[in-house]
Amino acid sequence: MTTRLDDLPGRRCSIAGALDVVGDRWALLVVREVSLGAHRFSEILRGTGAPRERLAARLTALVDAGVLERREYSQNPPRSDYHLTKAGRDLLPVLQALMQWGDRYVADVPPVELRHRGHRIQASWVCDVCGERVGRDTERHATHES
Amino acid sequence: MTTRLDDLPGRRCSIAGALDVVGDRWALLVVREVSLGAHRFSEILRGTGAPRERLAARLTALVDAGVLERREYSQNPPRSDYHLTKAGRDLLPVLQALMQWGDRYVADVPPVELRHRGHRIQASWVCDVCGERVGRDTERHATHES
Repeated sequence: MTTRLDDLPGRRCSIAGALDVVGDRWALLVVREVSLGAHRFSEILRGTGAPRERLAARLTALVDAGVLERREYSQNPPRSDYHLTKAGRDLLPVLQALMQWGDRYVADVPPVELRHRGHRIQASWVCDVCGERVGRDTERHATHES
Repeated sequence: MTTRLDDLPGRRCSIAGALDVVGDRWALLVVREVSLGAHRFSEILRGTGAPRERLAARLTALVDAGVLERREYSQNPPRSDYHLTKAGRDLLPVLQALMQWGDRYVADVPPVELRHRGHRIQASWVCDVCGERVGRDTERHATHES
């Protein structure tokens, strides 16, 4: 990952760093498509609805950023497809948070639901340390910058 | 909220709907800044580092989308500032997910941390129904589209 916070404008913050990598809709829709099993360019193109050239540029950027890896599945003709790296899989909570927000605030009914163990997931952020929901009592602390 | 999934390209999905509203870095950095207490244009400009004209357009779009509300704080001269609506506050889990990802994968050390009750938050998505972490056994189901 080559993004450095010091190179970005505004407040020095890892949110800005993350958005430097995935801060446009096509990047996150690519991650969604690959997580749903679309690995080939034509499948990702159809699933995202992205313009072809922007999709090609975005895939290259996501490979360079370490979110996707390109795997060759045919040598003759040369063909490769796209898979999530560990960093790419770790973006799924971002997608889940966006999905919950979209389900609540976007005009039409939610068309896709996340299920496990037979029921629909309604997930909250829960702190691993104390087991409480992360809510509005959260305090943000700027750490000392050396 | 005027975004409609039927108007968007690609897979019909509330993630795409959410990204139609907040799918660029400036939109989410604006939500971050306002959540941190920056309400006036000049404060949001400084905190985001966005180009001035793009920030002005983005603020108007976020007001139109119901994420921010504009409040007049002076009549003479006329001056207003920006506050998060309920929909805007409900974007904070998206920012928290991006922050956790950025802390892990962006090059330099994380400069801001989220704390509550005296410790740093390390949060997981936990299902409200069964209390389990939402993980890789999650199944996605397309619901029947009428």
